[in-house]
Amino acid sequence: MTDRKNPSALDLPMVDNLPPATQKYFDICMDKLGMIPNVLQAHAFDIDKLNTFTALYNDLMLADSALSKLEREMIAVVVSSHNRCFYCLVAHGAAVRQLSGDPMLGEMLVMNYRVAPLDDRQRAMLDFAVKMTLASATIEESDRRGLRDVGFTDRDIWDIANVAAFFNMTNRVASAIDMRPNDEYHAQFR
Amino acid sequence: MTDRKNPSALDLPMVDNLPPATQKYFDICMDKLGMIPNVLQAHAFDIDKLNTFTALYNDLMLADSALSKLEREMIAVVVSSHNRCFYCLVAHGAAVRQLSGDPMLGEMLVMNYRVAPLDDRQRAMLDFAVKMTLASATIEESDRRGLRDVGFTDRDIWDIANVAAFFNMTNRVASAIDMRPNDEYHAQFR
Amino acid sequence: MTDRKNPSALDLPMVDNLPPATQKYFDICMDKLGMIPNVLQAHAFDIDKLNTFTALYNDLMLADSALSKLEREMIAVVVSSHNRCFYCLVAHGAAVRQLSGDPMLGEMLVMNYRVAPLDDRQRAMLDFAVKMTLASATIEESDRRGLRDVGFTDRDIWDIANVAAFFNMTNRVASAIDMRPNDEYHAQFR
Amino acid sequence: MTDRKNPSALDLPMVDNLPPATQKYFDICMDKLGMIPNVLQAHAFDIDKLNTFTALYNDLMLADSALSKLEREMIAVVVSSHNRCFYCLVAHGAAVRQLSGDPMLGEMLVMNYRVAPLDDRQRAMLDFAVKMTLASATIEESDRRGLRDVGFTDRDIWDIANVAAFFNMTNRVASAIDMRPNDEYHAQFR
Amino acid sequence: MTDRKNPSALDLPMVDNLPPATQKYFDICMDKLGMIPNVLQAHAFDIDKLNTFTALYNDLMLADSALSKLEREMIAVVVSSHNRCFYCLVAHGAAVRQLSGDPMLGEMLVMNYRVAPLDDRQRAMLDFAVKMTLASATIEESDRRGLRDVGFTDRDIWDIANVAAFFNMTNRVASAIDMRPNDEYHAQFR
Amino acid sequence: MTDRKNPSALDLPMVDNLPPATQKYFDICMDKLGMIPNVLQAHAFDIDKLNTFTALYNDLMLADSALSKLEREMIAVVVSSHNRCFYCLVAHGAAVRQLSGDPMLGEMLVMNYRVAPLDDRQRAMLDFAVKMTLASATIEESDRRGLRDVGFTDRDIWDIANVAAFFNMTNRVASAIDMRPNDEYHAQFR
Repeated sequence: MTDRKNPSALDLPMVDNLPPATQKYFDICMDKLGMIPNVLQAHAFDIDKLNTFTALYNDLMLADSALSKLEREMIAVVVSSHNRCFYCLVAHGAAVRQLSGDPMLGEMLVMNYRVAPLDDRQRAMLDFAVKMTLASATIEESDRRGLRDVGFTDRDIWDIANVAAFFNMTNRVASAIDMRPNDEYHAQFR
Repeated sequence: MTDRKNPSALDLPMVDNLPPATQKYFDICMDKLGMIPNVLQAHAFDIDKLNTFTALYNDLMLADSALSKLEREMIAVVVSSHNRCFYCLVAHGAAVRQLSGDPMLGEMLVMNYRVAPLDDRQRAMLDFAVKMTLASATIEESDRRGLRDVGFTDRDIWDIANVAAFFNMTNRVASAIDMRPNDEYHAQFR
Repeated sequence: MTDRKNPSALDLPMVDNLPPATQKYFDICMDKLGMIPNVLQAHAFDIDKLNTFTALYNDLMLADSALSKLEREMIAVVVSSHNRCFYCLVAHGAAVRQLSGDPMLGEMLVMNYRVAPLDDRQRAMLDFAVKMTLASATIEESDRRGLRDVGFTDRDIWDIANVAAFFNMTNRVASAIDMRPNDEYHAQFR
Repeated sequence: MTDRKNPSALDLPMVDNLPPATQKYFDICMDKLGMIPNVLQAHAFDIDKLNTFTALYNDLMLADSALSKLEREMIAVVVSSHNRCFYCLVAHGAAVRQLSGDPMLGEMLVMNYRVAPLDDRQRAMLDFAVKMTLASATIEESDRRGLRDVGFTDRDIWDIANVAAFFNMTNRVASAIDMRPNDEYHAQFR
Repeated sequence: MTDRKNPSALDLPMVDNLPPATQKYFDICMDKLGMIPNVLQAHAFDIDKLNTFTALYNDLMLADSALSKLEREMIAVVVSSHNRCFYCLVAHGAAVRQLSGDPMLGEMLVMNYRVAPLDDRQRAMLDFAVKMTLASATIEESDRRGLRDVGFTDRDIWDIANVAAFFNMTNRVASAIDMRPNDEYHAQFR
Repeated sequence: MTDRKNPSALDLPMVDNLPPATQKYFDICMDKLGMIPNVLQAHAFDIDKLNTFTALYNDLMLADSALSKLEREMIAVVVSSHNRCFYCLVAHGAAVRQLSGDPMLGEMLVMNYRVAPLDDRQRAMLDFAVKMTLASATIEESDRRGLRDVGFTDRDIWDIANVAAFFNMTNRVASAIDMRPNDEYHAQFR
């Protein structure tokens, strides 16, 4: 897979001259991560699309929230597991291994989150994300009440819902255009 | 439904003083649409979230694309039909009726897009969007080739994939938090 | 769709000379509804088939029952929604709008009945109809007890079961032969 | 099961004095079949309902058609197999054994019709009936063309569709009210 | 079906000279059952494969267990019903009829085990076997607790799990290679 | 998970004094693998069950076959992925990494085998294994022909079918009793 010219099956090369802000962002990626994540490269054929995507991603995954960054990555992996999205399982599986320091937890969430040793709060959070993934139209007030019962606020429910929904979007883009993760993720934090 | 205090089941009121840019945006909505769409009101508890959402929405649905605005709305409705998302079926069903001038087409896409009189290009586009919705992990090169065979470019495939994926996101948010559409949509463009 | 010679994809024209009773029935339809419903025209290639169909339809939907006519139409729409039957959603969606005087209720039942503001009795009735539609073999005594718990008698359960089952029949006929609803329904009672 | 007072889980006893025509019909059943099929007894709490049901049944299963009676029973069993309807599998499984003189064929259709040695015509007929049962909304012109390609006329397609749909109705009624078949069927024509 | 040279769709004839132990085993089959079950003939192209299969089969179905032989056959039939395995439904359906002396019970388990008159213990056992068949990854401690609540020990749970899993294996082999049951089973113990 | 007394959720301790042959087998495991696989420990409450299991396992996975050991492990992982079996994904995922020397291939088969760079032969083999896992009753002669078309013999088809079916058995046992893999697998061959 590593010899593909493009980060996806589509022939949409990056713009020739990256704008300075984008170049700086990519430089930071190289510096911090040792790579420019392929999802960014894939969007870089159109800088507006890259910017709207990264703004949403950063707001959901990195901005202030009562959900820890690890919890948001846990949602990412469990949603991606149910959608069988190779890109997101590889990239966010690595993130769970990194943020948790528990490689086995990452594997459990990739393979079957029901085997993971989770407290009631995290389990309820992931059950809700799975129901959103598989049967969103059947969610009712009782499901939200279940989240409140384990301590989540309405703002937390917003965050759970939006993170779970975001990966239902990106999983589908990644599979639809066969976007592939950078090779670097595979061996990280094992 | 019309007596709910909030546009969703979550108690997340709008920020007290909308920033001028937001206020102006909402004024334009009132002016042009006669309402502020509830999805915008629901995001307005956090202006950053509102802005990232609208930026992505506008880029996908309104920015330059070889897909017409009607075609993008057709994808929205067909995806929402398969996810049974009440909010999006009401709001984007109205948009299809408006943009097509064909109320029956709107109903067909809401109910079962296979009965709609579509040309091969639009049918292939919607079939791809449905496969992305129901079984994204099974999409392979032959599916993309099918789109190219009816004339879509790789850039068009990007757009189809991202519009279809976007509604797989918003459908799930809307169902997860029981977001309700403005009453105005129901009778429009019948 | 409106230029098709036949009310379905099958070339089965009406008998040349309608018997007087049939002619009278069709005249009443024109008089009361402004149209002869296509389902009747489709059966009219064989008057015996037309008669057995209308006798069953009238017994289930119009004869004496503790279920109101609106409730029977609600079952019709919710079953048809799960079977994605275009004909029945259009025709019986209009009936729900008419009998309820609530166009939004019609839309809710077409799109996702779980968002409709229903009392416990009607919700239990529709949940039972949906279970019959999707997984009838898993119905057990506890399901019938659930109906009795909200006040339905055994006779009412018979009526719920038979109306729900009837639309599981007609939905399948309509889809199998691509029967199309009269155009008149679309704009009615909006 | 044989000690239940009623032919179903509903307490809806037969009318006290059967009208002469009904009594005569039941006498013929006793005479010819050695039993009154429970489905008739179950309807006999309301003679109008019994009559509309039997009229439809007789028109579909016994009246003139290019489908043989065996073929109509084959559709009945295969539809009932996919709906896992105990009543109809028992009663119509016996009918297939009787009409075909091939007990193994009856078992095959009950268990998995794909193992039965069918000609192309009968296989296409049953495949269509199964698609109607499991995913009627996805049927399109190509499916009907498939039936025409093996020799079925439009009238035959009507008959296939209506027989398959009828058992999708009765299967659901039988399961919804736990209607049980007469014991006599089990050992017949083995 | 009876004229096929091989017991399956694969051309894998029995070894020319059966080893004495195998010959003796087959002679016992002929003696006791009046046939050599086709599953044994199908394995006999490789005596090691035959021996490992029969050793596992005998350990699970015939060796000491708190589950009666009938109960193990009941699991076999209910699993095979959900996998629609013709071979196993025929062969083990006959076994249920034989061991229970209740032909109707055999039919119920083949068609829809929910109609069978089972005590709580047997119903829980079969519900667990069905969940293993359809959605094994969702089994959790609460499911095992449900079995313990009706009196099963951990050793019993092992046996239930291994018998249910075994037929999930053999069902799939039988369907994959179109293995057919001996004709003798059909009429037995009716 | 590593602090559980037993290799599964069942309290079925190993027999007190392992027979010499078993002890020797376990010693070889420690020697070669650095562990006694938990599946063996789980069976060791009953030496007959351990022996019949290992005999079948060894015959399928290690004995002579035109399928390479890697190919048999590939089937194991892809079947386990569709059944979401944590034990088998961990243990056999490691085996694929080891035998292929390609850690990424192991991840691909765990997550979504459709992204793996496979030749036509291996892809057909895995597609058949997946169809056996998800819908075995729908397999027909055309599926077997597909395997023959890419070069598989009937004996090869037997092996594919039996390996795929075996993991449909063990996946279900592992999930039913919550069997957990040895920790050692996680970091191996990354």
